[in-house]
Amino acid sequence: MQRSDFLGGRVRLWQPREGYRAGIDPVLLAATVPAKPGQSVLELGCGAGPALCCLGARVAGLRLTGLEIQPAYAALARRNLAENALTGEVIEGDIGAPPFALKALTVDHVLANPPYFEIESRSIASDVGREMALAGPAPLADWVRLAAKRLRVKGTATFIQRAERLPELLAAMGEGLGSLELWPLAPREGRAPRLILARGRKGGRAAFRLHAPLILHSGPAHIEDGEDYTDVIRTVLRGGEALNFPP
Amino acid sequence: MQRSDFLGGRVRLWQPREGYRAGIDPVLLAATVPAKPGQSVLELGCGAGPALCCLGARVAGLRLTGLEIQPAYAALARRNLAENALTGEVIEGDIGAPPFALKALTVDHVLANPPYFEIESRSIASDVGREMALAGPAPLADWVRLAAKRLRVKGTATFIQRAERLPELLAAMGEGLGSLELWPLAPREGRAPRLILARGRKGGRAAFRLHAPLILHSGPAHIEDGEDYTDVIRTVLRGGEALNFPP
Repeated sequence: MQRSDFLGGRVRLWQPREGYRAGIDPVLLAATVPAKPGQSVLELGCGAGPALCCLGARVAGLRLTGLEIQPAYAALARRNLAENALTGEVIEGDIGAPPFALKALTVDHVLANPPYFEIESRSIASDVGREMALAGPAPLADWVRLAAKRLRVKGTATFIQRAERLPELLAAMGEGLGSLELWPLAPREGRAPRLILARGRKGGRAAFRLHAPLILHSGPAHIEDGEDYTDVIRTVLRGGEALNFPP
Repeated sequence: MQRSDFLGGRVRLWQPREGYRAGIDPVLLAATVPAKPGQSVLELGCGAGPALCCLGARVAGLRLTGLEIQPAYAALARRNLAENALTGEVIEGDIGAPPFALKALTVDHVLANPPYFEIESRSIASDVGREMALAGPAPLADWVRLAAKRLRVKGTATFIQRAERLPELLAAMGEGLGSLELWPLAPREGRAPRLILARGRKGGRAAFRLHAPLILHSGPAHIEDGEDYTDVIRTVLRGGEALNFPP
């Protein structure tokens, strides 16, 4: 186990040294959730809780719930919430067969960072926990369906996913959500987006919107031994600011 | 009727003064089609033939076919092909109920600039020809289905469409085509893409790709009385160059 700083030290998280470890994706995802103080939030597949903790640190008084299939990660998420002075419930269970405890829940916002790979498309990792986090068994449609079910009308669901799976994600979101928006994340100016943030609203009727890519790094190439995040991204990752979808 | 220059005067097109008139969209679309000399190309909804004529002017010896529902536009497309010294066939017929003449055709490439609006979502234009061109009766799925049917295996279908209809277009393309690629077109750097170029291959099995947006205009705002196209766009619109999808 190892403890790392997030949001410039405002959040500290225990993570397994060998298993799946959070990068910047859950931090960016949490920064985009338009939750207001006192609202309720559900994260599907919360892992060790980086997104829940970052969101809880940014917005006061949220009712936080996480669903996590792996008991060890669920326990870690509970510990991370507690050690960051946040209250929240972490429920163990499967996206594809949600536990009873989830069925009574209706929330204002759902967020999820579903596994980026389909199990069949890659070799099996040696670490089972890492494998589940990278290539969980539930198809994206299950994640979106569960999100839509647990949302109140007009509530938002926000996902982060690899750009490669955009067709699958959009098709799934088109089933249960409306007012869809896509915000591609590009590593640098002019480079192909590798990730996408996607949002929908339950019962939303606005036209689909495609936003200009959000650029993660400045300059034309990676700088050795130095962070080269763009100003916007730095204020999010280090300053703990919100990352609002374009108006 | 009025005659306009395209590709820096290499193509001259008759267009109705009052009806639907081609902007830069069919010119950009035609520039992206990866046709080689001697190959066969089908345009669905060819209108007065701007895309067919631009493509024929760029790539020598293509076998060009257009499908157009409105007889007056079909006649104009025939005239435009002839006056630009191109040989091609323009078939009158409906995307949703393709004529017999189309059923025997198998082509290397399909291109289409389907109407940008659904009929129910806007008021009826006073000009019926313009109305059909802007808001044809066939859903995008019909356009894609017909394109896939008429393509040889590994042949490409390229569409240009409003970004707002991306979910509908992607879903349709996912049915009959593979190796999907999206290339958003943004009016300026950092602005939301308004149009998308979308390509698929019949029988293609490559992963979906999202490209960085192609920027149409340089500078932060419109310059009065002046063209401010980016260099790449100018070489396409004025120089008649190809616009190859990113590698």
